[in-house]
Amino acid sequence: MLNLVIAETALETVPEEIFKHTSLKKIRNNGKKPTDLLLDRTLHHFAILSGNLEQDYKRARPDISHIILLSALATPLFKKNQLKVFIHTINDQFIKIGDNLRIPKSYTRYEGLILDVIKNKKIISNDGQSLLEFSENLTFLELLQKHIKPDIVIGFSTNGISKTFENISKELSSFNNPCAVIGGFPKGHFSPQIESHLTKKYSISSSSLEAHVVVSRLLYEYEKTNNFLI
Amino acid sequence: MLNLVIAETALETVPEEIFKHTSLKKIRNNGKKPTDLLLDRTLHHFAILSGNLEQDYKRARPDISHIILLSALATPLFKKNQLKVFIHTINDQFIKIGDNLRIPKSYTRYEGLILDVIKNKKIISNDGQSLLEFSENLTFLELLQKHIKPDIVIGFSTNGISKTFENISKELSSFNNPCAVIGGFPKGHFSPQIESHLTKKYSISSSSLEAHVVVSRLLYEYEKTNNFLI
Repeated sequence: MLNLVIAETALETVPEEIFKHTSLKKIRNNGKKPTDLLLDRTLHHFAILSGNLEQDYKRARPDISHIILLSALATPLFKKNQLKVFIHTINDQFIKIGDNLRIPKSYTRYEGLILDVIKNKKIISNDGQSLLEFSENLTFLELLQKHIKPDIVIGFSTNGISKTFENISKELSSFNNPCAVIGGFPKGHFSPQIESHLTKKYSISSSSLEAHVVVSRLLYEYEKTNNFLI
Repeated sequence: MLNLVIAETALETVPEEIFKHTSLKKIRNNGKKPTDLLLDRTLHHFAILSGNLEQDYKRARPDISHIILLSALATPLFKKNQLKVFIHTINDQFIKIGDNLRIPKSYTRYEGLILDVIKNKKIISNDGQSLLEFSENLTFLELLQKHIKPDIVIGFSTNGISKTFENISKELSSFNNPCAVIGGFPKGHFSPQIESHLTKKYSISSSSLEAHVVVSRLLYEYEKTNNFLI
């Protein structure tokens, strides 16, 4: 069993102060509320620029979590219930991915699903299984302590110690309840709040790799280490 | 150098006979033309159902090519110009991906880019490099003969001979100009027109894997075989 946390993920509804910006007038006039939209640099660029958002370079990229989930949830590891996936957001919100979630391929449907769970806190399948759960005000540490209880926490960062995916997978596999942590943001590094709870921090390439590439390669090597690909 | 062909890709503008369907009335009234939209099951489901499209189960999934390209073009292999990517579509259209293309993360922008190249045949960067090229009526065989000239063509299919990514990568790497072929469609198998030009056909898993997972794993192993990850 492997736990994967996507940390400080650039995923949030539009903050009130951004929603008021003149460039979003048309959206307001359409009757939309800030909670009806995910903050997205593609659409809200000017409002973000003038909005004085803290750490704005780490935010407004909901597509990043979508492609990480598309990559992770399509693996045999996830399909055989050997991978638990958790999203921790830049605002300390938390989304738990259920074992049987089929993530929508369409971004529009993904956005709808995320907005739905933020609003209703839980999405249950027709046969009663939890597909998504949402909670607020959960720090990274609380996520680890309450939901995972890992015996090792390995983070991926360009400023970590150089190590191959193969060797990282072997190290993770030598623990009972290992946890891998990858940043769900476009630029920058983990904040000290995350850093301080990483047992180890590894870099897997001299050039920086997008998060979904790191996740794809890690899960593949983890499957190989554990003889999953037969 | 590795060539990757995404074959019989579910990527096309809306066929005229689909565009006439009553369920697309609103789109027509908005002044859209069939060439302004990619055929998409998410949006045109009812029109497709009643449209008598040939092989409709293999069509109308433009998101598949998007996520394959997101996976392939984010690899060090592509970034160091050691991977050439070609899209062959279900209608024998052909899109050549330029070495310096940065594929839009946003699906909406991806759709806009593809519609643009279908209309204008070529997209050139500000500094004069070809980013995308489009041509019509190019069979898979012609694509191989005119644009790639491979010395081996390996296709991925659940009905191929079982072999690991590692061994397939070694085999590909033993040739000068190898070509890997993956289906860009949601269901079914390669048509005989594709099958007959595959030198080898391999299966890499007992369960079927989505195309982007196969591409991610293959390119990673190919990098490993060729000592790319230093």
